[in-house]
Amino acid sequence: MAELFSFPKVEFVGNKSLQAGDGFHYYNADEVVAGKKMSEWLKFSVAYWHTMDQRLVDPFGEGTATRPWDKEGEEGSMALALAKVDYMFEFLEKTGVEYFAFHDRDLAPEGNTLAETNANLDKVIDKIEQKMQETGKKLLWNTASLFTNKRFLAGGATSPFAEVFAYAAGQIKHSLDIAKRLGSESYVFWGGREGYDFLLNTDTKRELDHIAAFFKLAKDYANEIGYTGQFLIEPKPKEPTQHQYDFDAQTTIAFLKTYGLEDTFKLNLEGNHTYLAGHTYEHEVRFAREAGLLGSLDANMGDKLIGWDIDEFPNDIYEATLVMYEFLKNGGLPTGGLNFDSKPRRQSFEMDDLFYAHIAGMDIYAAGLKVAAKLIEDQVIENVLKERYASFDEGIGADFEAGKLTLKDLAEYAENKTDADINATSKSGRQEQIKQTLNNYIFSVLGA
Amino acid sequence: MAELFSFPKVEFVGNKSLQAGDGFHYYNADEVVAGKKMSEWLKFSVAYWHTMDQRLVDPFGEGTATRPWDKEGEEGSMALALAKVDYMFEFLEKTGVEYFAFHDRDLAPEGNTLAETNANLDKVIDKIEQKMQETGKKLLWNTASLFTNKRFLAGGATSPFAEVFAYAAGQIKHSLDIAKRLGSESYVFWGGREGYDFLLNTDTKRELDHIAAFFKLAKDYANEIGYTGQFLIEPKPKEPTQHQYDFDAQTTIAFLKTYGLEDTFKLNLEGNHTYLAGHTYEHEVRFAREAGLLGSLDANMGDKLIGWDIDEFPNDIYEATLVMYEFLKNGGLPTGGLNFDSKPRRQSFEMDDLFYAHIAGMDIYAAGLKVAAKLIEDQVIENVLKERYASFDEGIGADFEAGKLTLKDLAEYAENKTDADINATSKSGRQEQIKQTLNNYIFSVLGA
Amino acid sequence: MAELFSFPKVEFVGNKSLQAGDGFHYYNADEVVAGKKMSEWLKFSVAYWHTMDQRLVDPFGEGTATRPWDKEGEEGSMALALAKVDYMFEFLEKTGVEYFAFHDRDLAPEGNTLAETNANLDKVIDKIEQKMQETGKKLLWNTASLFTNKRFLAGGATSPFAEVFAYAAGQIKHSLDIAKRLGSESYVFWGGREGYDFLLNTDTKRELDHIAAFFKLAKDYANEIGYTGQFLIEPKPKEPTQHQYDFDAQTTIAFLKTYGLEDTFKLNLEGNHTYLAGHTYEHEVRFAREAGLLGSLDANMGDKLIGWDIDEFPNDIYEATLVMYEFLKNGGLPTGGLNFDSKPRRQSFEMDDLFYAHIAGMDIYAAGLKVAAKLIEDQVIENVLKERYASFDEGIGADFEAGKLTLKDLAEYAENKTDADINATSKSGRQEQIKQTLNNYIFSVLGA
Amino acid sequence: MAELFSFPKVEFVGNKSLQAGDGFHYYNADEVVAGKKMSEWLKFSVAYWHTMDQRLVDPFGEGTATRPWDKEGEEGSMALALAKVDYMFEFLEKTGVEYFAFHDRDLAPEGNTLAETNANLDKVIDKIEQKMQETGKKLLWNTASLFTNKRFLAGGATSPFAEVFAYAAGQIKHSLDIAKRLGSESYVFWGGREGYDFLLNTDTKRELDHIAAFFKLAKDYANEIGYTGQFLIEPKPKEPTQHQYDFDAQTTIAFLKTYGLEDTFKLNLEGNHTYLAGHTYEHEVRFAREAGLLGSLDANMGDKLIGWDIDEFPNDIYEATLVMYEFLKNGGLPTGGLNFDSKPRRQSFEMDDLFYAHIAGMDIYAAGLKVAAKLIEDQVIENVLKERYASFDEGIGADFEAGKLTLKDLAEYAENKTDADINATSKSGRQEQIKQTLNNYIFSVLGA
Ligand SMILES: [Co+2]
Ligand SMILES: [Co+2]
Ligand SMILES: [Co+2]
Ligand SMILES: [Co+2]
Ligand SMILES: [Co+2]
Ligand SMILES: [Co+2]
Ligand SMILES: [Co+2]
Ligand SMILES: [Co+2]
Repeated sequence: MAELFSFPKVEFVGNKSLQAGDGFHYYNADEVVAGKKMSEWLKFSVAYWHTMDQRLVDPFGEGTATRPWDKEGEEGSMALALAKVDYMFEFLEKTGVEYFAFHDRDLAPEGNTLAETNANLDKVIDKIEQKMQETGKKLLWNTASLFTNKRFLAGGATSPFAEVFAYAAGQIKHSLDIAKRLGSESYVFWGGREGYDFLLNTDTKRELDHIAAFFKLAKDYANEIGYTGQFLIEPKPKEPTQHQYDFDAQTTIAFLKTYGLEDTFKLNLEGNHTYLAGHTYEHEVRFAREAGLLGSLDANMGDKLIGWDIDEFPNDIYEATLVMYEFLKNGGLPTGGLNFDSKPRRQSFEMDDLFYAHIAGMDIYAAGLKVAAKLIEDQVIENVLKERYASFDEGIGADFEAGKLTLKDLAEYAENKTDADINATSKSGRQEQIKQTLNNYIFSVLGA
Repeated sequence: MAELFSFPKVEFVGNKSLQAGDGFHYYNADEVVAGKKMSEWLKFSVAYWHTMDQRLVDPFGEGTATRPWDKEGEEGSMALALAKVDYMFEFLEKTGVEYFAFHDRDLAPEGNTLAETNANLDKVIDKIEQKMQETGKKLLWNTASLFTNKRFLAGGATSPFAEVFAYAAGQIKHSLDIAKRLGSESYVFWGGREGYDFLLNTDTKRELDHIAAFFKLAKDYANEIGYTGQFLIEPKPKEPTQHQYDFDAQTTIAFLKTYGLEDTFKLNLEGNHTYLAGHTYEHEVRFAREAGLLGSLDANMGDKLIGWDIDEFPNDIYEATLVMYEFLKNGGLPTGGLNFDSKPRRQSFEMDDLFYAHIAGMDIYAAGLKVAAKLIEDQVIENVLKERYASFDEGIGADFEAGKLTLKDLAEYAENKTDADINATSKSGRQEQIKQTLNNYIFSVLGA
Repeated sequence: MAELFSFPKVEFVGNKSLQAGDGFHYYNADEVVAGKKMSEWLKFSVAYWHTMDQRLVDPFGEGTATRPWDKEGEEGSMALALAKVDYMFEFLEKTGVEYFAFHDRDLAPEGNTLAETNANLDKVIDKIEQKMQETGKKLLWNTASLFTNKRFLAGGATSPFAEVFAYAAGQIKHSLDIAKRLGSESYVFWGGREGYDFLLNTDTKRELDHIAAFFKLAKDYANEIGYTGQFLIEPKPKEPTQHQYDFDAQTTIAFLKTYGLEDTFKLNLEGNHTYLAGHTYEHEVRFAREAGLLGSLDANMGDKLIGWDIDEFPNDIYEATLVMYEFLKNGGLPTGGLNFDSKPRRQSFEMDDLFYAHIAGMDIYAAGLKVAAKLIEDQVIENVLKERYASFDEGIGADFEAGKLTLKDLAEYAENKTDADINATSKSGRQEQIKQTLNNYIFSVLGA
Repeated sequence: MAELFSFPKVEFVGNKSLQAGDGFHYYNADEVVAGKKMSEWLKFSVAYWHTMDQRLVDPFGEGTATRPWDKEGEEGSMALALAKVDYMFEFLEKTGVEYFAFHDRDLAPEGNTLAETNANLDKVIDKIEQKMQETGKKLLWNTASLFTNKRFLAGGATSPFAEVFAYAAGQIKHSLDIAKRLGSESYVFWGGREGYDFLLNTDTKRELDHIAAFFKLAKDYANEIGYTGQFLIEPKPKEPTQHQYDFDAQTTIAFLKTYGLEDTFKLNLEGNHTYLAGHTYEHEVRFAREAGLLGSLDANMGDKLIGWDIDEFPNDIYEATLVMYEFLKNGGLPTGGLNFDSKPRRQSFEMDDLFYAHIAGMDIYAAGLKVAAKLIEDQVIENVLKERYASFDEGIGADFEAGKLTLKDLAEYAENKTDADINATSKSGRQEQIKQTLNNYIFSVLGA
């Protein structure tokens, strides 16, 4: 097959020139970091909806990008849908990304019934399956769009309208069939419209009961067909709805535990979503990890001064480092990866920008991985914690942790201590020093 | 005893004059609303920390208020601590508020050891107990301050320092003894410093394990002494910490369920805290109610354009109405009430402003109660929901709710429906119309 | 002509029923408030872009609404463009709204050159002109869209690309010709993309020089053709750009004064935009009024917990009252009005919702007008201020205001006063009391 | 004099060890960057209020720090005030910081009248003057606190109470006398309470008229005494007030131009304040620079997810680089510097943390300076802009800039161009690539 993109295959070039361009400055697939090749740790994934389908529309203006495959067929045609697959796989090949991810509706046009829509979709899946076999590229996860079509104006699994609910169920069934067929490592639910726009016209309890039951039916079906990929929920606090039920990691955990779903699901955490919920990305990753629920990452970022989802390609070394720190502590992401749920800025409308953007995103996470690995190698954070919590490793602290003490025991122990004695046991948090050390690590590891 | 305040006893005056002043315009204690007297529904509570102890300090300036009791003793003296009790009870008497709430440290000065501090405190408790017996005023809830003293710089139950942790345990023990003695309806934990300032020096998992075990020890002790008041957690997302573990209602629910504490605690929801977490007050109250965890309300408000806690006395009829709507749906608050965790603005520095502020707060919730009761009487919201979710009351919707269907059944049902047929079942959300109806109710009920 | 909408002509019905529906509960066109008929004060305007063209699309989903005029022609056809005009004028007639507003691109499809586009547009303008003559409806303002088409990806008057800049100039020229022809009371510039997405690729100074010069050319042209309508800038802080040059009222004033444009422009203030800039609506209206620059109002609202522009129809009586208070203090808006830059919520997808939404918007501003008029009649705020600033009406305060004193004079006056004496002159701000009085006025005036 | 601090004199140690500690890793005073020594570019300043007076209090808790000088006298005593001066100068000596800054009230206790207060203050100023002569340390700026004392509850120069206003004038007079005496390079006004808490009890116009006149009296007085330091306003949007009149750079510029003060003042820009106003720090610095009003920098940072002022020591290399880029474009800050309006975190309560924090702050700005200098040396940004705006350097663009064209000329030029031709002139903004290049520069320059 003739080359579709003139952009060259992306290779590691290092910092010979500082100008970003068509090579990696930090991502070096075969370089071993923390005992594994970068390419083994960093299961990057291209997002079909952004990279193939996004024309850089925003609410105040039409798309600015045209894509080479636009010429391959009418908008909304099967011809175009099928042609896009070739471009996708060459894009994966050229960037060296091994995974991809999609919503059902990214791939093929809708028909007039779900049956027709499924038929359209299956033709594209046929082609994708074949390309996967040919190239070895893999499906990180797939999902179903229960938010784009107007039928879902009040949600899918939480729609107040039973016909829409049934349709959503049918769509998920087909989507799980595809997950099984393509060996999708995970299956994602992002409840974009599963929430409310207006509290007073919403029976929040009834809707949550519905979606929990819906998830159980989906899991039953996956079991039935032998699909064993990890189910994931992707939290987001709002947008498009005023309130999305999966507001953040903790809200989702509360939901899972309320409905007995905590063994069925893990979390897919997106950077930009975390800010919209008032958190840092590393916060959400930390808490998901410690809950044993860190499933996968939508590796993008936002702007903490901007109140909507911008899905920017990641470029912040602090965030990349801290997320990679949690990632390494988690032993990586066995059934997940780093999916670029990211799009170029609206002014970066050229095809080359799509390449540059993925290169930049891969590079910053490679850089973050290297810094995090070195921090762990030197036990920088671990030593801080060890010293800080030392009083719980012995004496009264250890007794408490061992469950040997009552409230009365503790009270008795404390009652006659003087303030001066107690305060003498407090240690400085050393935040300024630790942050400076972090900077030193970043500059030193990456400047080497 | 001679009258301490020249401010007259606050009576219901209605809207004879529109100028706010020393009477209630809406709160009419004996008026029956939704089948009960206002005074039975609305268990208002005065917050000792704000009303007695707050001098309207802010981070950029000293206090602007002096209080009549300041002359009764040196700052930090037992004389002053004891004198304040008289003022408190006269304040309750004059405003007609039946409940109060306090932190241990609001009442009495600290000594050099916990034992000394407890001894100081107990003298004030003696006097309070006596005043309660004389006046019939009641304790809505008490709590322990694990955040003011510098020993708690890194938390109390989540302190990395075992001596501080033991001290916190001792303090809670004594605080529960007081709850038992005074018949406190609830016991509140607000974890102001139970969180982190800096993620990298914090062992979040170990700290959460600690606080969960701490809560269990506290409950065991309450059981041991026969204290049966409701345990409450008051969520807040941040401030003073960068992240507080009890971020919001859902985060707290996740925590309770993770550690098997969901039967031990309910929630005390503060208005201003909800905004800081990105929610409306009515949202948090709704979700707590539906989870069966609505315990009590800290009836204040904030400013959604201001990023810190301002604890303003409530004055918004929309919020008051919607919170009272959830409140009535909950059957009121059997073991809780409406505690004014509120302070006058820094420029409202006169003693009269303290009265005006409580009058305004009581009036707006009385007004909200009246509107909410009328909305329910007319089934305004109930009818909206009934019609909106009707398709789940029969046919495929009802079968799904009854657990009779699999994903396949639903898929089969939907597969050959046309888009047109499905879309025809969607109904308008009518948000604009409902909001206008709400306005009509507010103006009509309150202008009558 | 046959009736196009089945919705009945909207009449004043008052609060006979509290249920919102097809009549006004507060807007009574001929009722005299503050010495004028409501219809004379409240120059409401329908926004063509929302009411005619908006299909309730959002960034995550297609439009949910279809409109009766959709059947009149292909999307993007002149037939449809011309048919819409009839619907618009019947909508104005049925709601009793006397004004409308539009962007050039709302009206007619674009051609392949500006000349062709102008020709399309002129055909629709011909029809609008005729309808205006027939019905007496008026144009509140028109504007040019320099943001929708992809050519404006980096702005129009601030585009880094001279061809685009020239095109923008051409578009404005034609738009001013239309303003002149239709007797538009004002002419609006909303610089949706006049700002930056990325500071490092933007020559901010050069861009600001360009747009200032552009505005001068536009004014020269208006003078040349004898167009005397008021030029307006509509500030917005961000969205779609990361930073819009006209961030808020003060930023726009700084710009106008920097470039000597303060006599050319006034401000068109939109409610939702004010929150995005961190302000209340009444704040922006107050400061524009006091600067002599209050031109017109885009009467909508947002959600202070939502970080993007939602353009909700107004429904908050507090905001409506305070904005109407400033409005009355301004003597109304001689060359402006209250334009509903507002759209129904995405779930309010029926044609009836468009009527309900306008009814609700008109009603809340009518209600606000009545409350504000009564507040002024009773001099509620005026008396607060008179008493509060009394010390500047005599003595040292008056001497200072009269310019009679130096810093030394003031220092000498103050130097030996005791703190006690100075503090005795401070007065309480009485915020709680004033807010309760405001509530009493709202409920009493509107419940009557 | 015996050494007061055991902390060693801070020296440049580079990245021999990555652990932050008692040496500089990047700040190397004599190293030449962009043609000057680092120490000449970076006029760092220690803030008296934070470094000497701050005990790490927050609104929910008492101070956590004690300082070595606390033992030198009673709180509020002259003995303590005088002793602190020695510690301050040794702190400057050990850190190698050449400047300091203070509010009048940081230095000495207040008396019962302004005259007494001034007398106290003058004794400390005597000692400071002598220490300055001995050590060569310099005063970057001084200011007057018109916000801490309760008399200023409603502002100083905008107080509604004439007695308070006169007191404020007296205080400024004395403060200017000190500026003159100590050769302060600038004189700062931060209007912490010059704004409103409640719009309805505030005569905003009258207050702004007052403060403008006040500023003119201050300038007249400075002229009279021959004080020629640069007057600066430090903007902040809110906190403690709900709205501060000097919201941000643009609001302040609008004010200055409205009252003819634009030649009297420049701006002192604080990092944390910029976020609270919805801006990045580099944005505010850029716009102040381009307006010719960049006076000085309060070099701190905040947390964009936190809604209040945290005054954290700077540690973000992106912000430091971009601010230093603008700084270099400005030719440095002739009458200003980098004042650490920063405090250690509340858990960093040890004296060593004060040293570590300053070291970290100096290091990150030194690092930023080096990266910015290299970016300019390589003309990275300049080349981006040159290419991007090239169409205004010739042809129609240049003619427009030269003022040769009317709106009609531009329209005529554009009218018959096709969309395709116009769009072909647009260039990609290349944001992703530029950001990656920026990362490459940071890592490469600092890792070297
Ligand atoms: Co995502
Ligand atoms: Co996103
Ligand atoms: Co509270
Ligand atoms: Co609070
Ligand atoms: Co608008
Ligand atoms: Co808007
Ligand atoms: Co500052
Ligand atoms: Co600050």
